[in-house]
Amino acid sequence: MGYPDTFEGFMVEDPKKWSTFKRREFKPKKLEPYDVDLEIIACGVCGSDLHAATSGWGEDMMPFPLCPGHEVIGRVVAVGEKVNTLKVGDRAGVGAQIWSCLEDGCAQCKSGNENYCPKQVDTYGAKYPDGTISYGGYSSHIRAHEYFTFPIPSALSTTLVAPMLCAGLTVFSPLKRSNIGPGSTVGIVGVGGLGHFAIQFAAALGAEVYALSHSESKVEDAKKMGAKEVILTNKEKWSDKWKLKFDMLLNTADAADGFDMSEYLGCLNVHGRFWNAALPDKPLPQIKAFDLATNGAFICGSHIGNREECLEMLKLAADKGIEGWVETIDISEDGCKEALERLNKNDVRYRFTLVGFDKAFGNQAAKEVEK
Amino acid sequence: MGYPDTFEGFMVEDPKKWSTFKRREFKPKKLEPYDVDLEIIACGVCGSDLHAATSGWGEDMMPFPLCPGHEVIGRVVAVGEKVNTLKVGDRAGVGAQIWSCLEDGCAQCKSGNENYCPKQVDTYGAKYPDGTISYGGYSSHIRAHEYFTFPIPSALSTTLVAPMLCAGLTVFSPLKRSNIGPGSTVGIVGVGGLGHFAIQFAAALGAEVYALSHSESKVEDAKKMGAKEVILTNKEKWSDKWKLKFDMLLNTADAADGFDMSEYLGCLNVHGRFWNAALPDKPLPQIKAFDLATNGAFICGSHIGNREECLEMLKLAADKGIEGWVETIDISEDGCKEALERLNKNDVRYRFTLVGFDKAFGNQAAKEVEK
Repeated sequence: MGYPDTFEGFMVEDPKKWSTFKRREFKPKKLEPYDVDLEIIACGVCGSDLHAATSGWGEDMMPFPLCPGHEVIGRVVAVGEKVNTLKVGDRAGVGAQIWSCLEDGCAQCKSGNENYCPKQVDTYGAKYPDGTISYGGYSSHIRAHEYFTFPIPSALSTTLVAPMLCAGLTVFSPLKRSNIGPGSTVGIVGVGGLGHFAIQFAAALGAEVYALSHSESKVEDAKKMGAKEVILTNKEKWSDKWKLKFDMLLNTADAADGFDMSEYLGCLNVHGRFWNAALPDKPLPQIKAFDLATNGAFICGSHIGNREECLEMLKLAADKGIEGWVETIDISEDGCKEALERLNKNDVRYRFTLVGFDKAFGNQAAKEVEK
Repeated sequence: MGYPDTFEGFMVEDPKKWSTFKRREFKPKKLEPYDVDLEIIACGVCGSDLHAATSGWGEDMMPFPLCPGHEVIGRVVAVGEKVNTLKVGDRAGVGAQIWSCLEDGCAQCKSGNENYCPKQVDTYGAKYPDGTISYGGYSSHIRAHEYFTFPIPSALSTTLVAPMLCAGLTVFSPLKRSNIGPGSTVGIVGVGGLGHFAIQFAAALGAEVYALSHSESKVEDAKKMGAKEVILTNKEKWSDKWKLKFDMLLNTADAADGFDMSEYLGCLNVHGRFWNAALPDKPLPQIKAFDLATNGAFICGSHIGNREECLEMLKLAADKGIEGWVETIDISEDGCKEALERLNKNDVRYRFTLVGFDKAFGNQAAKEVEK
């Protein structure tokens, strides 16, 4: 067999051996009228891939074998009969969501909130309504509904845009939904896979941007990304001079890892938002009612973003030259292992993109990719 | 001595004996140009009075002896030379805040957020910038800045409006700041001192209102207040049929008392708000990042409301006939004791108002009060 009947991917078979990948064939969902097939050129490695592979979010949340990967760039090689936003040969991307009902009766889908559709399907490890399992982009091909497949502006480099499709959108949507722009003061907590995009986007949107990090080694990078100043949160009483300062603190770090929430919340302006964009395994730290009452603080969360926001993000990135800070790794059983193990040690600045899909799968389109 | 040099009040001397009140004289702050003196007619008994008297929010948060009471109605008996919103003889009220800086350089005071001014002074148990301690309304008189002293519309009964000044405003402000009105779906969690106002206000603003309670005994009352339906939260899986339903859940109950936050948060529509209006002693229950991510839920908190909101609330109450559901108790050492002890047992439907200030202090204005 082979494309278009079967695809191949690198899969984790057991969460106890979360970095052991095996190459396997799998059957994709059947091609429906709005579906697009991509021959994959590159795939970003997301923190979610590690949470999923280790069953960190809870046992039974993911089916195994699991093929991760939801920051996928490829060339369109086939389209369903009703597809009209893409054509064969186009470069396109798929993020962390691959389907939602898009029905007229769905309040979420009809209000630009398809990313909160109760029937939404994640790009991997999820079930379509017909029971088909979704497999991610550590693979030869991906089949996706066109609504969740985004044309990539020509100005953007394949390897550097790939991580934007989850990490980028996950921070771009909260910034947009909080009306961040000129006059806003934003703090980005954590300078990593999500944070390095958040700093760049918030600055590109016109906000005054601060980075908050416990690592002095990231100060210079954060400034290059667009931070006016870096606030070191490993200092005693670091928050004292920032009371009531921020319209938004966009948290991309693991708040479950010992955050003193009173300190962070106290830095918000009245009704300012502590927006938790990361999805740590453990519960968030406890808060007291007074932590919210003193300044009317909001704690927010979100799940990626919608199509409109994704297209706007890609346009902004193209217009302003925003790129992921990326290390590439050739995809293979060993390559996937290296990516997840280094990610688990936070040993990446700031994102991995898997490449070499030509060598692994013979994908013609992947030969053209810059590395 | 006596008014205007000294006032008298009923005070708790020791948080370990939180229901033992002693009548004491005290020196008020000095009369400044914007100050108003009220001869007190009635004072509501707020949950905060109990938290404060017991030092429940933390030791050293309150100075003792403590004179509680921040739902005060009185007659103006003197005004400072610059007061122009009230005159001698007017009926007026003071809520939980008695002062803020109101300076041009204060971002909070100048944006309708004087209730979040970093220098704000609570009506009792707080220090003015000059070190004077504030004493509350379980007393003969109160001296307050006119900005925090509100004319009471003539349609409103003294005893039934008193509790609105803290309990009412504490729920009215979140409703207004969440744009609740026709087309909104609101759940009021807890049918008590705050909740019974919240149901009435949300309904008066035009929202579809549900009450959430673990007590079947409150169903009929909640419906009379304006709830379309009462959701009993003591049933297993009560939340299953309310997923994505509410634009706002305004929580007036003690969430620290075993709330399963996942259930509540899951009932919110996309970016709906779980707004915590109560201030329990203990920390709020832990949440997971997924509890927020699934529907982009917001957790909010607040501190009373601003002057504009208070005046709008009083007008709405006058126009729509909204009143507190009140039991009156005559003020005295025994009366204050009874009020706090019954409040501690939740033995009140739904609010106490202290009256009889004529018998206790010889206040002439208090003779006119309905009981």
